[in-house]
Amino acid sequence: MRDGVLNGSAAVQRRAMSKAITLLESTRADHRAQGDALLTALLPHTGRAFRLGISGVPGVGKSTFIEALGLYLIGQGHRVAVLTIDPSSTVSGGSILGDKTRMEHLSVHERAYIRPSPSSGTLGGVAEKTREAMLVCEAAGYDVVIVETVGVGQSETAVAGMTDMFVLLQLPNAGDDLQAIKKGVMEIADLVVINKADIDKNAATRAQAQITSSLRLLGLHGNPEHAHHDASLWHPRVVQMSALLGEGVDTFWAAVSEFRQLQTANGRLAARREKQALAWMWERIDAGLKQAFRQHPQVRELLPQLQQDVAAGRIAASTAARNLLAAQSGQALEATN
Amino acid sequence: MRDGVLNGSAAVQRRAMSKAITLLESTRADHRAQGDALLTALLPHTGRAFRLGISGVPGVGKSTFIEALGLYLIGQGHRVAVLTIDPSSTVSGGSILGDKTRMEHLSVHERAYIRPSPSSGTLGGVAEKTREAMLVCEAAGYDVVIVETVGVGQSETAVAGMTDMFVLLQLPNAGDDLQAIKKGVMEIADLVVINKADIDKNAATRAQAQITSSLRLLGLHGNPEHAHHDASLWHPRVVQMSALLGEGVDTFWAAVSEFRQLQTANGRLAARREKQALAWMWERIDAGLKQAFRQHPQVRELLPQLQQDVAAGRIAASTAARNLLAAQSGQALEATN
Repeated sequence: MRDGVLNGSAAVQRRAMSKAITLLESTRADHRAQGDALLTALLPHTGRAFRLGISGVPGVGKSTFIEALGLYLIGQGHRVAVLTIDPSSTVSGGSILGDKTRMEHLSVHERAYIRPSPSSGTLGGVAEKTREAMLVCEAAGYDVVIVETVGVGQSETAVAGMTDMFVLLQLPNAGDDLQAIKKGVMEIADLVVINKADIDKNAATRAQAQITSSLRLLGLHGNPEHAHHDASLWHPRVVQMSALLGEGVDTFWAAVSEFRQLQTANGRLAARREKQALAWMWERIDAGLKQAFRQHPQVRELLPQLQQDVAAGRIAASTAARNLLAAQSGQALEATN
Repeated sequence: MRDGVLNGSAAVQRRAMSKAITLLESTRADHRAQGDALLTALLPHTGRAFRLGISGVPGVGKSTFIEALGLYLIGQGHRVAVLTIDPSSTVSGGSILGDKTRMEHLSVHERAYIRPSPSSGTLGGVAEKTREAMLVCEAAGYDVVIVETVGVGQSETAVAGMTDMFVLLQLPNAGDDLQAIKKGVMEIADLVVINKADIDKNAATRAQAQITSSLRLLGLHGNPEHAHHDASLWHPRVVQMSALLGEGVDTFWAAVSEFRQLQTANGRLAARREKQALAWMWERIDAGLKQAFRQHPQVRELLPQLQQDVAAGRIAASTAARNLLAAQSGQALEATN
């Protein structure tokens, strides 16, 4: 599978990629071991793509945007992979974003690879699969990886946590009610795109000015990543675009390229990836520890009653926590006997 | 110690409380077991106090506010305990808030009990000790427990997570730069007090109007706890006060009493405490799991190298996480051998 991903002809490579990603999505222990071995073998060939995160509410035109951007990039000689994180797919059992007909020209292009969201697991689990799929795409030589999300729950944070740049799409009327923009999302945006600017040029220009000013305030008071601006650092900005008419794609990509160049030169791109990788490791360790804890026979036996006792105020929460931890590690529960 | 806390004469009780809290703060295993037994014995006598969280930046007048409020409450027949959460004390090795001379009249009153912040541990650890100290105070019959914090890091969230009501103190000029108010703190405030209103009555009135309007917007778009307002729910509000002149203490306490009555009647006070207790239990379990993980001999041996490998991109973060989890649980590392 490794060779197919790395060196296969177009058709062989595509099949190998899909097989590899399916293997990595499996929860069977033997698959997991094979998957880890594959990942380790592919890893030296990853990391050379630019990782672009895209978010925006339904109706903002993400598919049209990604189709226009993808075809533009292919025209410039790039190979483009599109992955999605759709936490709602874990409820519906299928990805609402997975429909390839959404991007009808891009999806059939041989220089594009589109893979829908994994359809089971927690957001953390889905994000892990998507990160691993991203590595497979990079090893296969895709040099732009787009990770999109519809923005359910904490999915924007997950996407921002695995990409080099996080782009938020907005509608032209976004400026009319800035309070309605989901909390915390503006803070993590490196670039805001007012899409569908053709619908109402005046509103789009107003939104651009208002969001620019919000980003400046956030830069002063918000995300320390964006604070203490100096010329060597990126200032989040706002561009207009009409993906449907194909207008503004070049301006958008110029801004992305400028970001990439600056962040590479000042070392923040490498630092961001390193931080993301370590955070990812600890996030998976936390999830694993909690899972092992909840599945421990002694914990499963004690937990329901202790939760009731804590809720009813019959035992202090910290005492219950210590008893459960002691039960898992096989120690006697001195304090309560 | 239990009897001293529950039934001692004033002086005996005070000594028993201090001894109990010191025992609960100890990290020695035998102390911890005794402490858990004591907590469990005290627990049936807890929960009847009103738990009031107070936060505000240095200079906003927290000490004067608490002194004025505490003396007012004692005048009304209450017994008042004041605890602090000061994460910075874990750096300095002593609590900057612990100075009892800050509240010179309250601190010597026999119906008041003031205890400084524990001075070591993570914020989670400090918060745990403070929660346990709160239970000791309640068991001793203190019917108003005030937990104050200076608002370093996530300490406001910790205080809001252990109290029935979270109050944010602001200066009269707060309205001039709402963006400067720490992110996320306004969302969790049940009541905002413009303190030192005597300094600039106009500014205080302006701040009151502006923060009231911000809270309304947050109620619409923010914290779901405050959303979907109806008459049976509390609407966060803003009051003016001058603690130094003793003005507005009665208005403040009337608002607190109204909140308490409403939240008790609509069941949200009980629901909040139940949710807090369960969240506290899981927070301590998480901390315990992570500590046990980090202290495991195999993990300690492997972690430094794996962290370097993950940071350098030599191994996928999820693979490293799985290897470390396997090492802790004593399983073979099939995938990497």
